[in-house]
Amino acid sequence: MDITRIEAAAARLKGHARRTPLLGASALDEIAGRRVLVKPECLQRTGSFKFRGGWSAVSALPEAERKRGVIAFSSGNHAQGVALAAREHGAPAVIIMPSDAPTLKIENTKALGAEVVLYERGGREAREEIGDRLSKERGLTLIRPYDEPEVIAGQGTCGLEVAEQAAELGVSDAEVLVCCGGGGLTAGIALALEARAPGMQVRPAEPEGYDDTARSLRAGERLSNATEAGGLCDAILTPMPGALTFPITSRLCGPGVVVSEEEALRAMALAFRHLKVVAEPGGAVALAGALFHGDAHEAETVICTISGGNVDEAVFERALATLKG
Amino acid sequence: MDITRIEAAAARLKGHARRTPLLGASALDEIAGRRVLVKPECLQRTGSFKFRGGWSAVSALPEAERKRGVIAFSSGNHAQGVALAAREHGAPAVIIMPSDAPTLKIENTKALGAEVVLYERGGREAREEIGDRLSKERGLTLIRPYDEPEVIAGQGTCGLEVAEQAAELGVSDAEVLVCCGGGGLTAGIALALEARAPGMQVRPAEPEGYDDTARSLRAGERLSNATEAGGLCDAILTPMPGALTFPITSRLCGPGVVVSEEEALRAMALAFRHLKVVAEPGGAVALAGALFHGDAHEAETVICTISGGNVDEAVFERALATLKG
Repeated sequence: MDITRIEAAAARLKGHARRTPLLGASALDEIAGRRVLVKPECLQRTGSFKFRGGWSAVSALPEAERKRGVIAFSSGNHAQGVALAAREHGAPAVIIMPSDAPTLKIENTKALGAEVVLYERGGREAREEIGDRLSKERGLTLIRPYDEPEVIAGQGTCGLEVAEQAAELGVSDAEVLVCCGGGGLTAGIALALEARAPGMQVRPAEPEGYDDTARSLRAGERLSNATEAGGLCDAILTPMPGALTFPITSRLCGPGVVVSEEEALRAMALAFRHLKVVAEPGGAVALAGALFHGDAHEAETVICTISGGNVDEAVFERALATLKG
Repeated sequence: MDITRIEAAAARLKGHARRTPLLGASALDEIAGRRVLVKPECLQRTGSFKFRGGWSAVSALPEAERKRGVIAFSSGNHAQGVALAAREHGAPAVIIMPSDAPTLKIENTKALGAEVVLYERGGREAREEIGDRLSKERGLTLIRPYDEPEVIAGQGTCGLEVAEQAAELGVSDAEVLVCCGGGGLTAGIALALEARAPGMQVRPAEPEGYDDTARSLRAGERLSNATEAGGLCDAILTPMPGALTFPITSRLCGPGVVVSEEEALRAMALAFRHLKVVAEPGGAVALAGALFHGDAHEAETVICTISGGNVDEAVFERALATLKG
């Protein structure tokens, strides 16, 4: 994995993925006590950076393979990124989701033309078995959410944009906080910035209780979370850092920033008020780190990612309630 | 007023105003029955296109005049656009607001460094008298919200971007719905598109009861609204089309599109869900026109502006409630 692969992904994404802007607001700078710049990947197609990785992976397939179709395990943003990328390539997409996934996510994925196959958690057939069976029957190619070089390269295109946009603002030194699940976006951005903005330090941001990457970076080995399910920040909950992503993040990133769910909700509300963008809790943890964990930062400028593919209205109302009183 | 003045404004805005992206979502296309592209000026600095006009006007002043300061009458987005533009030019700004303006708007304006002077509606001293007195005492230059050539030129830079971004998507024919108050944005965009995308037709969008521009375009003369105050779409309520803007809009724009407050709230909710941006009711009327007044459109593509400088959380919750059931 290196910058060449990210640049090749950027060439394939051109005209298909959006170049999201780099936002900021003086009110946020005041809260953080330093300059805060925000890369709102909630404005990316399907509402999250996952479209970049999905497009990168689907577009990198040989045509014959792509025509047979792709398959992904995901209950959220990766599903939608792969589904839209596949549809626009004229390729079938099968998404395997747990039967207890929120209706919103299932409907959003179907609306993008994917065939959704539900499985029972702890049921007769594990999701991997279903995936294997369907892949063999139909010749589908599995697209992993982060442990897949072309996905990491696609997410890295977000880092290329950050480097260019920060340079336009005269910013070359910064901490870059990235909402981190399996580490695909974190690793991709870190590789891009290593080559294009070496004065920037990437730091993964995670919710309390699901800080596997922060702990793994400290330990120097992949550690898992005590629990997999639950939590408001479900968009970025993964069992442990990826086998492909961790060698990259452990070489280039850290230390991790860990925020509470309450802080993620407040960050969502402040993004609503001052940036006019809609984040989901898991997509707001980096902004929460920038705003509320100032003691953890050394750089004058903090850049952070936001995403918001599947925003539940009830959760958003909880976030807005933090603005009151 | 012509394209030269808009291009000069664009040169002055470069590096200061944001180039907002052009968004879209297939779910919105399906609702509208045609392609919908959205120019989210809520992502502009201060949350609305008014920053473009404010910056254009402040930056066009001779330095000696600018140093003495500027003054504006506004209870909302124009106030904030002028305030931030003045602050970044190192110029004092006085904003005259009604004493019953929402606290949110007063605080947002003060937070941008402006001196806010409140007046009583129907009080001893009319706001124009206060403005005249302060202007003379301090040598301040009045910046009108729309009947001001440099403000129209600044808003027109939004039209330059629309022309370029639509061309990148291969779109040259479209209806362009613009949220319309006094007509500064509508006139500016229409002038820009006349020169850069002559296949596009600009149509002002207004709320029911405040459709002075739609009626004026039909009548061929400036007509006023029956009432000035009140209504959810307060961001775009003005007594009648501007003396400078109407000759431009009557030459280039129409017919108008008129939407209900309920439709504006639903458009806010759909922008939240599918575009992840935050609009205010007055800044959502163009999207409401695009989504819910399909019979009024002939073009295959509808482009519309959004803004959202001062979004009240309670109003936003009302908008979200339209998604339920």
